[in-house]
Amino acid sequence: MVRFLIAAPKEPQAKWIRSFRQIAPHIPLDVGYTSPYPDHVQCIMVWGKQGIDYSKFKNLKLIYSMGAGADHIVWDPSVSKKIPICRIVDPQMAFSMSNYIITAVLNYHRHWYDFIELKKVKQWKQYDYDERELRIGILGLGHLGMDAAKKLNILGHQVMGYSLSPKKTSFPTYSGHQLDAFLSQINVLVCTVPLTNKTKGLLGMELFKKFEEPTYLINVARGKIQKEKDILKAIDQGILTGACLDVFETEPLPSDSRLWNHHKIMITPHNASFSFPQEGVHQVLENFRRVHAGEPLLHQVHFNRMY
Amino acid sequence: MVRFLIAAPKEPQAKWIRSFRQIAPHIPLDVGYTSPYPDHVQCIMVWGKQGIDYSKFKNLKLIYSMGAGADHIVWDPSVSKKIPICRIVDPQMAFSMSNYIITAVLNYHRHWYDFIELKKVKQWKQYDYDERELRIGILGLGHLGMDAAKKLNILGHQVMGYSLSPKKTSFPTYSGHQLDAFLSQINVLVCTVPLTNKTKGLLGMELFKKFEEPTYLINVARGKIQKEKDILKAIDQGILTGACLDVFETEPLPSDSRLWNHHKIMITPHNASFSFPQEGVHQVLENFRRVHAGEPLLHQVHFNRMY
Repeated sequence: MVRFLIAAPKEPQAKWIRSFRQIAPHIPLDVGYTSPYPDHVQCIMVWGKQGIDYSKFKNLKLIYSMGAGADHIVWDPSVSKKIPICRIVDPQMAFSMSNYIITAVLNYHRHWYDFIELKKVKQWKQYDYDERELRIGILGLGHLGMDAAKKLNILGHQVMGYSLSPKKTSFPTYSGHQLDAFLSQINVLVCTVPLTNKTKGLLGMELFKKFEEPTYLINVARGKIQKEKDILKAIDQGILTGACLDVFETEPLPSDSRLWNHHKIMITPHNASFSFPQEGVHQVLENFRRVHAGEPLLHQVHFNRMY
Repeated sequence: MVRFLIAAPKEPQAKWIRSFRQIAPHIPLDVGYTSPYPDHVQCIMVWGKQGIDYSKFKNLKLIYSMGAGADHIVWDPSVSKKIPICRIVDPQMAFSMSNYIITAVLNYHRHWYDFIELKKVKQWKQYDYDERELRIGILGLGHLGMDAAKKLNILGHQVMGYSLSPKKTSFPTYSGHQLDAFLSQINVLVCTVPLTNKTKGLLGMELFKKFEEPTYLINVARGKIQKEKDILKAIDQGILTGACLDVFETEPLPSDSRLWNHHKIMITPHNASFSFPQEGVHQVLENFRRVHAGEPLLHQVHFNRMY
């Protein structure tokens, strides 16, 4: 008998269970780290690191990240390299993520946080805040980064992209060894790269020093890509003009973090974009079918490159 | 000898004078309400109501609004109906205005003001704020409203438009007597109509009662189109979910206005969009040439319809 296991925080889990039971009521679903019938579990759906011991499931055929990132699975020592890992790639997720990125960019562009402060003290400053002329760099041109880059470009902003491999785009892009050239051109950096061995701690002083102009940082990828001490230092030194962060080295962000109180840092609680259960469950079931049919999988994560 | 007169608040005035002296150094420019040679003044450029007595200028050929609206000129009793009035229509202005409107819409869509409050008290609420499903109504599909509507539509949001005359668009539009039908469909209302006899006080309780769903109001047009007491009342009654206002019945917004402190109202100081002097001066000079050549003018304001 085939069983599926789902492990996620309470709120997204409830929605996914509802969708799963609607779409695949014939498949028994276990909820949590474990199952009463571990040998029957052939597919595990997981949201972030959930303390699952994957080695307990002898007949596991597929591990599914319920989000866009799969670092927590690839880096789990209990995961066998023989078991395929997939992740959700969802147009609705790109819609969400782009809305978030555009909000973060435009609030900076139009000095919105200053106007919120001025409202508190009832100050009318009509001519003091010129729009910032932005040169927006999108670091990572995957499904999500590309969508945001295209949209910001359509809105009329200057956009540049960087990705490991060259891409065909209507806006300038850099690739491979051109990271420094890319960084020298921009004054807003939007990070959408996956967390891998190469990107861990990437958003630190070494990279910030490549900016030729004070730059605003937006990170919607993973917290471990950033060094929060370096972000604070770079703001102090005027290398960064501020930051909008959705992800953090430790989540939830600890209450003693200096980021919370910083007036140049906007904080959101890792909710820039969520996968949508309806779409997600369909993708899981389709890939599960493909595993059994021996067909190539959709959105499979490569163990070495990690995305 | 031909002279031009310019009257505007200090900061935009300085920029316009700079551009004017660069582009048309041969034309003497008077600054303020009056000129030492009023009979030589053939063109007046004006920003908002500036206390000019237009009847003093016997050889006036052209009055130019330095912005998108010309209500302050049309309604000035000292303006003769024989003198053509023009206004600036500038792609850069649409870029600014759309950026503003999109910021206002997305901050509401993504509960950004709530996250700013949560940051202050260091609260991490990852799953409490679902994105709002928006049905955005753009009231007024002129140069600026149309640009914002198209862009919000491209971003993937549901957009509807209303204008007096029918328009061909890729999103649904309503016109003429269909205002009530339009209002019944939306939950965000963006006002970009000109101030005219018909739109004065339009954003009041009578209109708000046509909403079938609680609606967020964004006004970037003119303050006299809104009734601020009705906005406050509609928020109290749950008819409006909040508002982002760039314009006010009295500007600067008086410090005793209840709007300043309201937590569901965002306030910006009538700076959603400015015309750009370089482009503006070129448009003024081109229309001045056309006046003398007897050619049709660009962006002329019709006295009766007022835009």
